[in-house]
Amino acid sequence: MTSHPNISNGWFKETTALWPGQAMTLEVKEVLHHEKSKFQDVLVFQSANHGNCLVLDGVIQCTERDEFAYQEMIAHIPLNAHPNPKRVLVVGGGDGGVLREVVKHECVEEVTLVEIDEVVVKVAKKFLPAMAAGFQHPKVKVVIGDGFEYLKNNVGSYDVIITDSSDPVGPAEALFTENFYDLMRKALLPGGIICTQGECQWLHLNLIKTVLDNSKKLYPVVEYAWASVPTYPSGQIGFVLCCNEAGRDLKTPVRQFSKEFERAKLRYYNSDVHSAAFVLPQFARNVLDK
Amino acid sequence: MTSHPNISNGWFKETTALWPGQAMTLEVKEVLHHEKSKFQDVLVFQSANHGNCLVLDGVIQCTERDEFAYQEMIAHIPLNAHPNPKRVLVVGGGDGGVLREVVKHECVEEVTLVEIDEVVVKVAKKFLPAMAAGFQHPKVKVVIGDGFEYLKNNVGSYDVIITDSSDPVGPAEALFTENFYDLMRKALLPGGIICTQGECQWLHLNLIKTVLDNSKKLYPVVEYAWASVPTYPSGQIGFVLCCNEAGRDLKTPVRQFSKEFERAKLRYYNSDVHSAAFVLPQFARNVLDK
Repeated sequence: MTSHPNISNGWFKETTALWPGQAMTLEVKEVLHHEKSKFQDVLVFQSANHGNCLVLDGVIQCTERDEFAYQEMIAHIPLNAHPNPKRVLVVGGGDGGVLREVVKHECVEEVTLVEIDEVVVKVAKKFLPAMAAGFQHPKVKVVIGDGFEYLKNNVGSYDVIITDSSDPVGPAEALFTENFYDLMRKALLPGGIICTQGECQWLHLNLIKTVLDNSKKLYPVVEYAWASVPTYPSGQIGFVLCCNEAGRDLKTPVRQFSKEFERAKLRYYNSDVHSAAFVLPQFARNVLDK
Repeated sequence: MTSHPNISNGWFKETTALWPGQAMTLEVKEVLHHEKSKFQDVLVFQSANHGNCLVLDGVIQCTERDEFAYQEMIAHIPLNAHPNPKRVLVVGGGDGGVLREVVKHECVEEVTLVEIDEVVVKVAKKFLPAMAAGFQHPKVKVVIGDGFEYLKNNVGSYDVIITDSSDPVGPAEALFTENFYDLMRKALLPGGIICTQGECQWLHLNLIKTVLDNSKKLYPVVEYAWASVPTYPSGQIGFVLCCNEAGRDLKTPVRQFSKEFERAKLRYYNSDVHSAAFVLPQFARNVLDK
């Protein structure tokens, strides 16, 4: 087995300073790929029970077994909170999973993905085919480059912007800054919505509070939602949602999939899950609802 | 450091056949207690970042850091779905955490806890004082004994029965059987509600389906709810709720704590969380809503 600092005795262990004293571990069947890209440490392994797993800088980005929860929620919440999203931008998301979900909306005419690290796209196409399927859709355009630069050059262009980033250390750090939220705001069309990876209430409530407070300076509507994802730290991940139009209710889907579509084509999201995702445990409400 | 088969290199690792290929790990500061009781392997350790942790047969039962989520949900959902619960029974729950929550309801006149393993009560009183505080309330009665026998001898006695059990291997196995659900039914007063530890949708959906199907033979109202608990396997745990009176809506609290009480005295549950907890991800709905 190819060696990796996070793998020993046949198990991958996700240790980082971001969640001290706890670590998810997954049994490894085979290391499929390991390289240092220009931006980060990229590891793909086949696990014993969770399919193939993508790890960046030692942190699990997705496993084939539960990735759908995150991809569906970060895509369908903002898209179904928008009455008619035609132009969609995805920042990050180089595995293709978010694209796969975005193109389920027939009203979407064009979706552009801007990923800084082409190695992520390469390994996803090879080892995460069910996610990378998103790249094959004719409405999809891929740009390898910096999200900041792309936003600066595309003012007033998008109905929905989804930022599918890793944690705020390494290449994704800047994606949690007020500056980035301001660039997203400028890149939106009127009535536009952004949705970003919003970390975990159990671990990073103060960071979430800061991001929400900064967002409230820029957007009239700011909300927080969450989902259960077993292989993310503490089994939960959140989403920051902002809209540039006052009075909009992002918690209630203005468009809904049919029950048949939900049953056949979705595995986590449905219209009821959409609204329930915004209900926060009391400890988070105490901090975030001030 | 006292040795334990699940601890090596200063980390506790929760490996069991119930969730193959994945294991939560917690950094250990000190093993506080280890003994084989008459029923199970009992371990208490002080963790680096999660307070003291109780482990039975190698499986995390609670950590001081996140135990409140489980205790509040398994107690307040059934109690606030009942218009006037006076007599409450807790089966299992020897750490005292559920008792601590039950006595927050002033209408409750008497709460009896039936725990099979007195060692659990003993170590909780010593090492989990914030949970074992529940034992000190004047309304609380503790019985060390078998839940089956106790139910048989207390027909038609309780408004709410909460079964706070470990997983269905070892001493808790029988608590997932139709026979046990029938004994609980007989021990209820008219309009009574049961709430049981209902495992994890991500891991044991078929077991949950079986428990719900069996319950539907016995109770006119059967529901499933869930909560996020980081140190439970896959970061999530569920609850089976049944009522012996047809037409009752367990999803909407008929009694509510004040907003001030929620803010000051609760950390996970609130009235909105109560209802949202019954909204299931699509993959679970597809299996359980048939």
